[in-house]
Amino acid sequence: MSIFSAGILIIGDEILSGRTQDTNANFIAKNLVSSGIKLEEIRVIQDNKKIIIDSAKLFSKKYNYVFTTGGIGPTHDDITSESLADAFDKKYEINSEAFNILEKYYPKGEFNVSRQKMAKMPSDVELIYNPMTAAPGFKLNNVFVLPGVPKIMEQMFVTVLKNLTKGKPKKIITINTNLYESKIAPFLKDIQEQYQECAIGSYPYFNFLSKTGGVNIVISSWTMFSLDEIEKDIIEMIRFNGGNYSIV
Amino acid sequence: MSIFSAGILIIGDEILSGRTQDTNANFIAKNLVSSGIKLEEIRVIQDNKKIIIDSAKLFSKKYNYVFTTGGIGPTHDDITSESLADAFDKKYEINSEAFNILEKYYPKGEFNVSRQKMAKMPSDVELIYNPMTAAPGFKLNNVFVLPGVPKIMEQMFVTVLKNLTKGKPKKIITINTNLYESKIAPFLKDIQEQYQECAIGSYPYFNFLSKTGGVNIVISSWTMFSLDEIEKDIIEMIRFNGGNYSIV
Repeated sequence: MSIFSAGILIIGDEILSGRTQDTNANFIAKNLVSSGIKLEEIRVIQDNKKIIIDSAKLFSKKYNYVFTTGGIGPTHDDITSESLADAFDKKYEINSEAFNILEKYYPKGEFNVSRQKMAKMPSDVELIYNPMTAAPGFKLNNVFVLPGVPKIMEQMFVTVLKNLTKGKPKKIITINTNLYESKIAPFLKDIQEQYQECAIGSYPYFNFLSKTGGVNIVISSWTMFSLDEIEKDIIEMIRFNGGNYSIV
Repeated sequence: MSIFSAGILIIGDEILSGRTQDTNANFIAKNLVSSGIKLEEIRVIQDNKKIIIDSAKLFSKKYNYVFTTGGIGPTHDDITSESLADAFDKKYEINSEAFNILEKYYPKGEFNVSRQKMAKMPSDVELIYNPMTAAPGFKLNNVFVLPGVPKIMEQMFVTVLKNLTKGKPKKIITINTNLYESKIAPFLKDIQEQYQECAIGSYPYFNFLSKTGGVNIVISSWTMFSLDEIEKDIIEMIRFNGGNYSIV
């Protein structure tokens, strides 16, 4: 079974200015990995038409799936939809299905010109429905266009994910130990060299108050049938070095 | 006065797998904007030598300052230093100053081969000192190489920032209103068109329990002498539309 790749484009001056801590990429990342889709890159880019166009074209070629967040609201600084129309040589026009959804959602007389902007999209898109605030996202080729507000994005992304062609989920085992990285480093390296098809990651942490720390050792593979043998080798290595371990 | 640009490279399989929520980019972003340095892009990339080399070279050309986080520990998966040596045609060798710092820090007999790896760096670097756990980062050309553990990264970054040539801080005013985006959108657009030298961003929020919401309107400029006039125009616009406002 093949592995599907993905990239995320966060369209967000508010992230680059530090005003907002992005959480959308982490939400998408967590859900992709358990769905057999390998997230290979995240870019946070400026609200700038040329940059959005170039990045979307590049990611669309490079990855099986592209997810964008942000820039599809009613204001002048929301330029994702028109930029994507340009990127993929589509018209930028009222999508009648989106128009109808929004018209029904707003009280009579309140579906004003600004709100109608949220129905303007590239031609030939498939809508991504929004169960919270109606304004839909859309899919254009392999690009999934989602809003920036996390709670709305998350609900819409979960629906998108259901309908994607997925791969085999990545196998992951995390082993925690109280040993320091420097102690286990040469042993881990040896084990890594024996098993080329998996990645062995080493993530140290420190508690600065208690001055204690340890390592989370993450074994992961997209292709191996089982990680049991590597797990056993690592546990044995921890014991050999006099450490404790637990499976996280 | 010129504006200095910056890019951040987060070297992190653990971010791409969703295991870890990155907070380093946000910390750096917040501090740059108040120091007159314009963060133009953040990339989260895989722990892959070729990708690190290509990204570092590109960012080093594109931006005045580049900050990397992650991948400078003692284990086999820490490949940032050797990748950067390759990227900038430097030797990858023991830095004697870093070696001395680390040797002094560890109890006698505990400065083992793995820990010595943390003193291996590209040639011709300037060290970035680490007040918490000794292992230094480094500056190579315009690239600042920092660790991934947030508390350590933050302390080291603050020192780095002190010594950077800075620009004029970006002027920013945030006005909160209870009006909806769609109500103010056409007015905001008009105001934006009058002031080309500033960016007017519109960031809606919703409270899904109380079903109320509003907008944070962020006026910002790297070049204008004062934003007072724009602020006045926006407040007047909010009042005209029957809304409340506060300066955030």
